[in-house]
Amino acid sequence: MKDVHAMAPARGQLTLRSVGVSGIRKPLAVQRTDRVHTLTATFRAAVDLPSERKGSDLSRNAEVLAEIVDRTALQPVHSLESACASIARELLQRHAYATEAEVEASAEYFLERGVSDAKRSFEDFALFAGAVASRQAKGGARVRRWIGAEAVGMTACPCAMETCRELLLAEYPLLADPRLGGLPVISHNQRNRTRLVFELGEDAEVEADAMIAAIEAAQSSPTYAILKRGDEGRVVLDAHRRPKFVEDVLRDLLASLPERFPDLPDSVRVRASTSSEESIHKYNVDAAHEVSFGELRRAAPR
Amino acid sequence: MKDVHAMAPARGQLTLRSVGVSGIRKPLAVQRTDRVHTLTATFRAAVDLPSERKGSDLSRNAEVLAEIVDRTALQPVHSLESACASIARELLQRHAYATEAEVEASAEYFLERGVSDAKRSFEDFALFAGAVASRQAKGGARVRRWIGAEAVGMTACPCAMETCRELLLAEYPLLADPRLGGLPVISHNQRNRTRLVFELGEDAEVEADAMIAAIEAAQSSPTYAILKRGDEGRVVLDAHRRPKFVEDVLRDLLASLPERFPDLPDSVRVRASTSSEESIHKYNVDAAHEVSFGELRRAAPR
Amino acid sequence: MKDVHAMAPARGQLTLRSVGVSGIRKPLAVQRTDRVHTLTATFRAAVDLPSERKGSDLSRNAEVLAEIVDRTALQPVHSLESACASIARELLQRHAYATEAEVEASAEYFLERGVSDAKRSFEDFALFAGAVASRQAKGGARVRRWIGAEAVGMTACPCAMETCRELLLAEYPLLADPRLGGLPVISHNQRNRTRLVFELGEDAEVEADAMIAAIEAAQSSPTYAILKRGDEGRVVLDAHRRPKFVEDVLRDLLASLPERFPDLPDSVRVRASTSSEESIHKYNVDAAHEVSFGELRRAAPR
Amino acid sequence: MKDVHAMAPARGQLTLRSVGVSGIRKPLAVQRTDRVHTLTATFRAAVDLPSERKGSDLSRNAEVLAEIVDRTALQPVHSLESACASIARELLQRHAYATEAEVEASAEYFLERGVSDAKRSFEDFALFAGAVASRQAKGGARVRRWIGAEAVGMTACPCAMETCRELLLAEYPLLADPRLGGLPVISHNQRNRTRLVFELGEDAEVEADAMIAAIEAAQSSPTYAILKRGDEGRVVLDAHRRPKFVEDVLRDLLASLPERFPDLPDSVRVRASTSSEESIHKYNVDAAHEVSFGELRRAAPR
Repeated sequence: MKDVHAMAPARGQLTLRSVGVSGIRKPLAVQRTDRVHTLTATFRAAVDLPSERKGSDLSRNAEVLAEIVDRTALQPVHSLESACASIARELLQRHAYATEAEVEASAEYFLERGVSDAKRSFEDFALFAGAVASRQAKGGARVRRWIGAEAVGMTACPCAMETCRELLLAEYPLLADPRLGGLPVISHNQRNRTRLVFELGEDAEVEADAMIAAIEAAQSSPTYAILKRGDEGRVVLDAHRRPKFVEDVLRDLLASLPERFPDLPDSVRVRASTSSEESIHKYNVDAAHEVSFGELRRAAPR
Repeated sequence: MKDVHAMAPARGQLTLRSVGVSGIRKPLAVQRTDRVHTLTATFRAAVDLPSERKGSDLSRNAEVLAEIVDRTALQPVHSLESACASIARELLQRHAYATEAEVEASAEYFLERGVSDAKRSFEDFALFAGAVASRQAKGGARVRRWIGAEAVGMTACPCAMETCRELLLAEYPLLADPRLGGLPVISHNQRNRTRLVFELGEDAEVEADAMIAAIEAAQSSPTYAILKRGDEGRVVLDAHRRPKFVEDVLRDLLASLPERFPDLPDSVRVRASTSSEESIHKYNVDAAHEVSFGELRRAAPR
Repeated sequence: MKDVHAMAPARGQLTLRSVGVSGIRKPLAVQRTDRVHTLTATFRAAVDLPSERKGSDLSRNAEVLAEIVDRTALQPVHSLESACASIARELLQRHAYATEAEVEASAEYFLERGVSDAKRSFEDFALFAGAVASRQAKGGARVRRWIGAEAVGMTACPCAMETCRELLLAEYPLLADPRLGGLPVISHNQRNRTRLVFELGEDAEVEADAMIAAIEAAQSSPTYAILKRGDEGRVVLDAHRRPKFVEDVLRDLLASLPERFPDLPDSVRVRASTSSEESIHKYNVDAAHEVSFGELRRAAPR
Repeated sequence: MKDVHAMAPARGQLTLRSVGVSGIRKPLAVQRTDRVHTLTATFRAAVDLPSERKGSDLSRNAEVLAEIVDRTALQPVHSLESACASIARELLQRHAYATEAEVEASAEYFLERGVSDAKRSFEDFALFAGAVASRQAKGGARVRRWIGAEAVGMTACPCAMETCRELLLAEYPLLADPRLGGLPVISHNQRNRTRLVFELGEDAEVEADAMIAAIEAAQSSPTYAILKRGDEGRVVLDAHRRPKFVEDVLRDLLASLPERFPDLPDSVRVRASTSSEESIHKYNVDAAHEVSFGELRRAAPR
């Protein structure tokens, strides 16, 4: 049959940075310390295309995904990012004309959470991962990977709390009594969604669970599926004792990383973002920053 | 040209209830008391199909939508539901084989809101509308219409407030002092999304703005785009002085309708639903009910 | 602690039809003939609320979901609808004041598909299920269940094909040569998304895989993740040899059900809908119908 | 009242790149040559935050949006990107501590389209725009702007067309007759969604309508809301006479830009991406590239 893809393009002989397949949904089995997690992941898999070629052989992308992802049902992989790296390597093998392959994946991820052992249940988080394989002049490929995690928790607003304290004080002067010092007062609180991404480079490894734990610790409070009456009160109280702007969530998260991930090299870049679904507004408030582990370590107070 | 649609179906000679076009996006100009609102609306427009006909002439649906909706740029219509009714009537005209035409529309809708005149701005709400035109034996059509509105506001939880009061009382016994009677204490609060739909029948008319006002009054508090520091505190305080479960929002909304809409006949059916995006959970809590104005009036306390 | 939920409502003493939790995401392990499938499912779980009670004890809904769904990691259930039925029964147990419990679930579902054994891979479909448990006067509960499935396939338009045949004939008179009789000519084709739902009642059982097979057989062609050049051509050719309107997909699907599901009782109701994402329009074309197995059997030609 | 935002952050004294509000929906009136378009736009508006400050005064962002966007109801602006630039400038004015303000907006956009004057109707496209204002050492701000547009059209696959030609030839040898030379044969076709973004810098101006026209010209065919039988055939025929991979759409679009936009300076960067919702697959095929007008001009054949 005529190989239309290998023909010369009619017009616009440009090398294209990225040609691929996207929105491919697949079950991916990942072996974690506790058990095998079956993630429902969404993949994009692409390569570059040289100027002299009309099309990319995209059926190969679907084949590579099927071979690598589908076989995890029998033999789970270590992580979402290692699956991405394997796929990126294999894409370079099968697209001889490509110099770079890029794979991205996202998935929901379930971890047990609970205010006590009796009230634990699976809660949903999100994972993100990717890999870029670059063909090396001397043969073989260099593969950079990244991994991300997202957790929904809760923030209580520190500013509205102070304003409400003043409003209530005008009505209830007794609130100024020193015996009520430190009393948390009403504020607005809401769902907060925070995402942390590490650009790992070639060798560094990191556990997604540790990234999720770092996020949850930076919010006013984690949230839980099962909360009986007393637990619910304690979660609300905890959140109001740690009121946070999105700015605080982001800074506290970033500041905690050097201690939480001592083995990650200075070159690892961090992208962090956070969004609070403000209960008092119809819109969200958010913050984002990008920084390297080296910069974070130099900024950290001794 | 061969009229493939008018041929007999190959198999499965069934009358089909609904065949149409959906996801049609259009700007629709609506004349309100204050000004012309240009809604970006999404339409579905469908008719039934008799058993002896292979296909419905769906290009007519696109034509009717273009004629009726596009000309509102020059001559605005009175309401989203009246546009739906006109489209439904016209569909019956052009699909001679159909006995029923159904049109549905949804749109974002902007109203000025603010805690004071100086802080007013456009806030987003949602409108829903529909019409069903039924061909009458004696000629002509009977058209039933429905209209819906949705508003995002805020709820504060009455249960967590009592639990927190007890937790705080154990730590701050002074809170039991009668001079602090009625002090609102911390609770979880969050965005609440409430929808109200009236099945108007043939003649009844209602203002969407009045439906939105009814919803906002039933929530713990409306929310606002612009809140300077003191305003923010007052909104939080108001919400904590009117703590509500979704059950309360729904019942208070339904109970308010007879007084707010005295002119609507008993036969008008009401569908109401409400969902709180719980700040302490990753999931939502919701409630829904369906009832007629007649039932609401009979249930209302004298 | 004060039981705020059990208090009397402040206003609007109405029985509410449905109060619950929604958007709960959970991994659910289902034992199928071939293997254990881990579905990522979204649940809603609700009960009704009597007029004398302010709130529903919704933490129980989260507990029941955790107990029944989370334990499938160790002991898979038979089906999504049986999980819904178990949850609905248990909700009635724990909400003594409720007369009805309703559970709904949706999930992605992966089945192996391919044009040949060498090119098989997991393709994504969707499952839907639900159960309504009604408390019986004599004790115990009656549980009605429903199950749905959705598949994406392909339709080619029979009308545009005939129009294009006429246009091409004017330009290429040789096309009228009888040796070209039956030649499929160009048309528009596109993704088609078709959903089939069975309201099973109390006892009937059905396999989701058989529902998906029925849908795929009613489309112009199924679609596949892996298609090498020749396969791609054959899929396109198949689709153009079976050109179908959405009306044809719906009727052919409904007409095939009595033969495909001979054991389902006449009382089982069928809801079917189909939507083609028209390549020549920015909007979709869709059709929907509702009918019982009994009606389908009586309509079926002998 | 205590200014909590101006306090020092508790921990993690980092300058944050971006703190803002997002998901703000507003009607925006834009004066075009033909008429005033009322866009429903979604905004994000953010500034950076110095290390010594706990929080950003985000109510100012909502105020600026209200002032600039809401007043377009009375006095329409020239374009979405000029509104973004005004907002960004004003944010820098009101956040004295910020060095950079970033505003992003997206909106649906309706243009009249049709295969003939009698069949014109409003079709939906998408607009994107943004502006970054950077405070200058000498006072004032430098404002860079970008603008993007997206159009849905249609692609027909050139590869499947050749494969189908070979398959049909085996069955209908008469197809090899030279009198049938150039006969377009069946292929798969589908919706294609293509986006074009120009980073304009400080001074360059461009019309969104011209960007949309460039996209539509690069697809196999535009699509239309109203197509009577013969028109439908001609659109299908046109698309099959211009079969295109996503790679072709992207290259043809990029190659057309120097001639279509002769006045844009070489420094303007172009980001283009395209995605075909493959009718034969459940996933999409896409391509993306980034290049400057200067590079495109040097690559263009004379």
